Amino acid sequence: MKGRKLLMIPGPIEFEPEVLQAMSIPTTSHVAPNFIESFGNCLDMMKKVWLSEDGQPFVVSGSGTLAMDMAASNLVEPEDKVLVVSTGYFGERYAEILKRYRADVTILKSELGNIVEQNVIENELKKGGYSILVFTHVDTSTGVRNDPKILGQLGQKYNVLTILDGVCSVAGEEIRQDEWNIDIVLTASQKAIGVPPGLALLVASQKAMEKWKNRKTPVLNYYADFNNWLPIMRAYQERKPSYFGTPPVNLILALEVSLKQILSEGMDERFKRHKKISRAFRNSMQALGLSILPKSNDIAAHTLTATYYPTSIDGNLFRKKLNEHGIIVAGGLLKEIKTEYFRVGHMGAVNRNDIISTISGIENALTQCGHHCNLGKGTSTVLSELS
Amino acid sequence: MKGRKLLMIPGPIEFEPEVLQAMSIPTTSHVAPNFIESFGNCLDMMKKVWLSEDGQPFVVSGSGTLAMDMAASNLVEPEDKVLVVSTGYFGERYAEILKRYRADVTILKSELGNIVEQNVIENELKKGGYSILVFTHVDTSTGVRNDPKILGQLGQKYNVLTILDGVCSVAGEEIRQDEWNIDIVLTASQKAIGVPPGLALLVASQKAMEKWKNRKTPVLNYYADFNNWLPIMRAYQERKPSYFGTPPVNLILALEVSLKQILSEGMDERFKRHKKISRAFRNSMQALGLSILPKSNDIAAHTLTATYYPTSIDGNLFRKKLNEHGIIVAGGLLKEIKTEYFRVGHMGAVNRNDIISTISGIENALTQCGHHCNLGKGTSTVLSELS
Amino acid sequence: MKGRKLLMIPGPIEFEPEVLQAMSIPTTSHVAPNFIESFGNCLDMMKKVWLSEDGQPFVVSGSGTLAMDMAASNLVEPEDKVLVVSTGYFGERYAEILKRYRADVTILKSELGNIVEQNVIENELKKGGYSILVFTHVDTSTGVRNDPKILGQLGQKYNVLTILDGVCSVAGEEIRQDEWNIDIVLTASQKAIGVPPGLALLVASQKAMEKWKNRKTPVLNYYADFNNWLPIMRAYQERKPSYFGTPPVNLILALEVSLKQILSEGMDERFKRHKKISRAFRNSMQALGLSILPKSNDIAAHTLTATYYPTSIDGNLFRKKLNEHGIIVAGGLLKEIKTEYFRVGHMGAVNRNDIISTISGIENALTQCGHHCNLGKGTSTVLSELS
Amino acid sequence: MKGRKLLMIPGPIEFEPEVLQAMSIPTTSHVAPNFIESFGNCLDMMKKVWLSEDGQPFVVSGSGTLAMDMAASNLVEPEDKVLVVSTGYFGERYAEILKRYRADVTILKSELGNIVEQNVIENELKKGGYSILVFTHVDTSTGVRNDPKILGQLGQKYNVLTILDGVCSVAGEEIRQDEWNIDIVLTASQKAIGVPPGLALLVASQKAMEKWKNRKTPVLNYYADFNNWLPIMRAYQERKPSYFGTPPVNLILALEVSLKQILSEGMDERFKRHKKISRAFRNSMQALGLSILPKSNDIAAHTLTATYYPTSIDGNLFRKKLNEHGIIVAGGLLKEIKTEYFRVGHMGAVNRNDIISTISGIENALTQCGHHCNLGKGTSTVLSELS
Repeated sequence: MKGRKLLMIPGPIEFEPEVLQAMSIPTTSHVAPNFIESFGNCLDMMKKVWLSEDGQPFVVSGSGTLAMDMAASNLVEPEDKVLVVSTGYFGERYAEILKRYRADVTILKSELGNIVEQNVIENELKKGGYSILVFTHVDTSTGVRNDPKILGQLGQKYNVLTILDGVCSVAGEEIRQDEWNIDIVLTASQKAIGVPPGLALLVASQKAMEKWKNRKTPVLNYYADFNNWLPIMRAYQERKPSYFGTPPVNLILALEVSLKQILSEGMDERFKRHKKISRAFRNSMQALGLSILPKSNDIAAHTLTATYYPTSIDGNLFRKKLNEHGIIVAGGLLKEIKTEYFRVGHMGAVNRNDIISTISGIENALTQCGHHCNLGKGTSTVLSELS
Repeated sequence: MKGRKLLMIPGPIEFEPEVLQAMSIPTTSHVAPNFIESFGNCLDMMKKVWLSEDGQPFVVSGSGTLAMDMAASNLVEPEDKVLVVSTGYFGERYAEILKRYRADVTILKSELGNIVEQNVIENELKKGGYSILVFTHVDTSTGVRNDPKILGQLGQKYNVLTILDGVCSVAGEEIRQDEWNIDIVLTASQKAIGVPPGLALLVASQKAMEKWKNRKTPVLNYYADFNNWLPIMRAYQERKPSYFGTPPVNLILALEVSLKQILSEGMDERFKRHKKISRAFRNSMQALGLSILPKSNDIAAHTLTATYYPTSIDGNLFRKKLNEHGIIVAGGLLKEIKTEYFRVGHMGAVNRNDIISTISGIENALTQCGHHCNLGKGTSTVLSELS
Repeated sequence: MKGRKLLMIPGPIEFEPEVLQAMSIPTTSHVAPNFIESFGNCLDMMKKVWLSEDGQPFVVSGSGTLAMDMAASNLVEPEDKVLVVSTGYFGERYAEILKRYRADVTILKSELGNIVEQNVIENELKKGGYSILVFTHVDTSTGVRNDPKILGQLGQKYNVLTILDGVCSVAGEEIRQDEWNIDIVLTASQKAIGVPPGLALLVASQKAMEKWKNRKTPVLNYYADFNNWLPIMRAYQERKPSYFGTPPVNLILALEVSLKQILSEGMDERFKRHKKISRAFRNSMQALGLSILPKSNDIAAHTLTATYYPTSIDGNLFRKKLNEHGIIVAGGLLKEIKTEYFRVGHMGAVNRNDIISTISGIENALTQCGHHCNLGKGTSTVLSELS
Repeated sequence: MKGRKLLMIPGPIEFEPEVLQAMSIPTTSHVAPNFIESFGNCLDMMKKVWLSEDGQPFVVSGSGTLAMDMAASNLVEPEDKVLVVSTGYFGERYAEILKRYRADVTILKSELGNIVEQNVIENELKKGGYSILVFTHVDTSTGVRNDPKILGQLGQKYNVLTILDGVCSVAGEEIRQDEWNIDIVLTASQKAIGVPPGLALLVASQKAMEKWKNRKTPVLNYYADFNNWLPIMRAYQERKPSYFGTPPVNLILALEVSLKQILSEGMDERFKRHKKISRAFRNSMQALGLSILPKSNDIAAHTLTATYYPTSIDGNLFRKKLNEHGIIVAGGLLKEIKTEYFRVGHMGAVNRNDIISTISGIENALTQCGHHCNLGKGTSTVLSELS
């Protein structure tokens, strides 16, 4: 389908060949001893990747939106006051999901490209009555990055549960679930986790599980209900057979391969690599005279970068030219400025060569679109950053 | 994981090598033109496999339970009267799902191994007020098969929508959605559809879509809400890009391969093959003196067979011995008789050799477990059936 | 290409899924450290599979005929007297190869379906002057099996080198190279070794290497010359890089997987399994009233069986019907009786299910071709043999 | 094994994912109708890739050296006068092969990095008596490229057969076998043909086949003898079954995929792309102050480039650093200057991104090894070349 082109969108990303190969292992039974072992290994490894010793991991067949939905539908009871800190498309989506489960949602929207100031959030929480604080770690639509450590502290201070939407961050951005007091960290497989799309993953703290256990009303979403999945996860953790719905066997085997690779790199090393690569990418964009969407580098994601096109060029043509150079990037997602920017994913198995190829492709495509840039400026910037 | 052993459980099943290979194609973007084409092809082909010209197909990342949940959560409004005809574990699950969405559920349970008589259902519908009739085509827990044609006629006569849970039947059992007046036919990928687990699939009639469009209350399950998925499916049908959640790219490519194979066999030919193989299997079991769970052959599934162990033997030991002969079958699922029977799937890519291997393995395992049987009796039965 | 049909020809055979998957690992450099390790592992493991502690293993890109050619061209000098014991097509081919290298070849041909009596061979060797004794362990054209132990003893007694053509025997038939005094044991990958075709493999005793080292004339075949390959094999054995011709990287990785599986089964267990399965197959053929080509069971191969068609039936039609039942077998190879018999391979990853499927398919195909047989007779025979 | 690192050695190269996937298709019989079709397609397509309408294609299991050996052993009779034009390691190897078959070999060696002047060759041919002229199109050891058009003209003028060793050129460098009067064009699969190693390929003109048919002495190499393979190739060309040695089924299926891709690019387009990419690579090396091994750009290969290390750096360290940047290149091969240069392959599926990644990696590795270079100089050069 894509041949040897580089898939540089913010998910799905380029996957390691070993992960892709695991996808085609002849499917075995979901209660076969070696599959139980593999699934159990995945759950054990997730806790290490999430840096959460006491959390309860879940892996369910579905997209990242299902992971968001699971967190919402299990933790929220009608009338619960929930504060959503939104930095873009996915913050708004989360508010919508929460409302579906009859939460009393207050949404604090950042300005475009910015985060919501800590004191604004704190002032809102001070008003009291909130039981949950929800935020998007990295909004895939803008590349803006929140600081989960601060939000975790606010959660603790004001005694609200915290839900981190980490679809575009887990296994790429630094997250220390236990240490930072985050109650739910959720994600999808096709981003920094490095597995083809089809898995919703989350780890819930014991505090989150307590809130769920003490619900007075039933979970409104049947498929997402922890009641269905908790016994299954526990059984796999104890390496025992069980059944609720057939797990996506091949994706789980691929997940086992990828989590092993992630842990073999080491979480600290991995966070560092994502920081280094993203800084090199941003600096190169800036060296080419392009502006990134986030207001400052301090709040720019390490997993993707959203960059404005120069005003003179046609974005569709630009991405088409890039594609001809073998680089696939994503267009804008935020409705109001959809045609004004593009997004480049740089997470998971991404390496130096992917970045250099992408930047050099961007240089050529810009030129082809009639934007004058100093050919080689971006590439030499990345070269000095990544040497 | 399973090497060259035969996976003869009622899903996941043995998949065609071409389908498995499609799983490891390097993942492309969900908006890449050739992926849009593949997804669109899947939706077009589903209508042919479902024999539904005017239906609206949906493919969403999730298990079969999600497909059940989608049908329920989208069609049911609180207080809707729903009649569930249950023939086992999955009928009861469906009732549970429907209640979650506040349906006023009446459940007609069959005796173990039997269906609910047509007149019993009709008497219930006559009482009036029902808006939906739900039934499991083939209950994976019992191997009992309902007749969708009759249930579709009842639906039409009493003006209720019909939902067919076809998780263990679609693409194996005869279903003519349009002709038989079934409003929703749902399934999962890992059964007769022949694709590794991870896809929930359904086709909804225009009448079903009407009921959904005219809802007065929001769909309670966010992830499953047709509002999210309908624009996406329509876009792929029109070969246009769109985004709600990232589709499971690799599974969709595998689905395209499998649907092509299914249509190349031809639906009538496929229904015939499933009938022939299942009859041969049942007859062989009976020739060995074993009893099948369904009360009569007329209501026995063509996609799996549930068979009682001889009373003298230990079921776990029996399945272990079978496994040593290279045959993986499933134990019982129905709580009350869980240890008394086993289940063998025979659907999708299943062929003559799989059946003969399985039956001969059963003969050997029975003997090893101390059950006297005329060695070769089952095999020669299948031989004369399948010659 | 073949879908789920069973490939029951005497090579290529059904391969383990893990072996096939190794074929598509992205090719690395032939001097990459991990490839050197894999190639080295293959050479080490070959010595264990061959039961030859002091032998020199070789793996070269080519077919089984190349392995025959390597042994011949390296060991033979013009005018060397070579005794070939032929039991069919491949014995005659070996004589032809040897003549090409100007050996003075004497060929002792067995009657069709028989071996050459030991005393006939011994009488010939007694005449003296021979330096090499060559024999086909199992002739793929006839399924006749020689006894390498006896031939090895003759070799020792008369001080001639022994070359065992094990294309259709190594890793299936019992061979104890050191203990039985066989100087060269050669084979190809696609038979009992269990790897797709493309590798010529052999292990040469130190005595054989001595004869080669002391040659007075150059090896006539450049590509096959040990001078080219010995330094390479030694380098890989010592885990050092080296280069003569690019090794078939992907096939070597597949070989590593297969040799590991073979050793994990254990050689004695493997020999036993091949004996058991072949006896069951032959007995079933005989129970169906068919005659096997080998004169007696004592000299019938354990890796394949050549069986005469009943005189009444058309062999092509029979194999076509078998193919429709999902079983691919081979026709005759021996020119004089090509249309009178067929060949079934049962080696490597072959299992009980393959055998039962094949026999039951044969029963059905015979019946379809108008040959009366007691349907189930063959299958019940194999059932009692393999229980 | 190599993960996502780029394999930039002069073979094996980076293969297209579709080609690698074909490697793991379950192996079918070498006489299965669809395999016969695939093999036949390969032979038909080879003639188009070779631009030889009347040639006889051969595909045999073996390495590139086997292809060289086949040409030599089939065309040469003892005492034949053969002129070898050598530009490095592989020219000398060819002389060695030819001598093995008792050719009376005259070798014209170029200076290091140069070709042999046309008039020198012509003067030698003028002496008369020659029946064959052999040359390496691109010597993998030096990256020096001969002009086959000129050598073909000389062949015609002096009525000698011409053998082009195209191991490192076919499907990358321009070759017009018919038009340019080349009698044998041979290669291996793992270079510009784009298939994992294990196939020897050649196309022989009718004139070459005539010389072979009129031999007075037998071909000395049994395995390579056209007598064995010609009937097989003809059978596959006519889509008929046949057997000499088992063909490497999986590699042939991969070859079919790759040849289709090659022809879909178009030969002229492909030659142009190789020229453009190699020029960009060479210019970048020169921009970095490095010297290439070939004396001038006019005789530099388009499929690989051999470049001298700066004298100040340690070549092993340099290649190790490059490897850490995810780029695998090859060291020197020519004994006399083995430690003084490195080789980079740029053929087959190679693209812009591979080249830019490699050059930028070289820039960083040079710097890390203490060689001062203007970081970004090489990359910006390639950028302007490939824009």
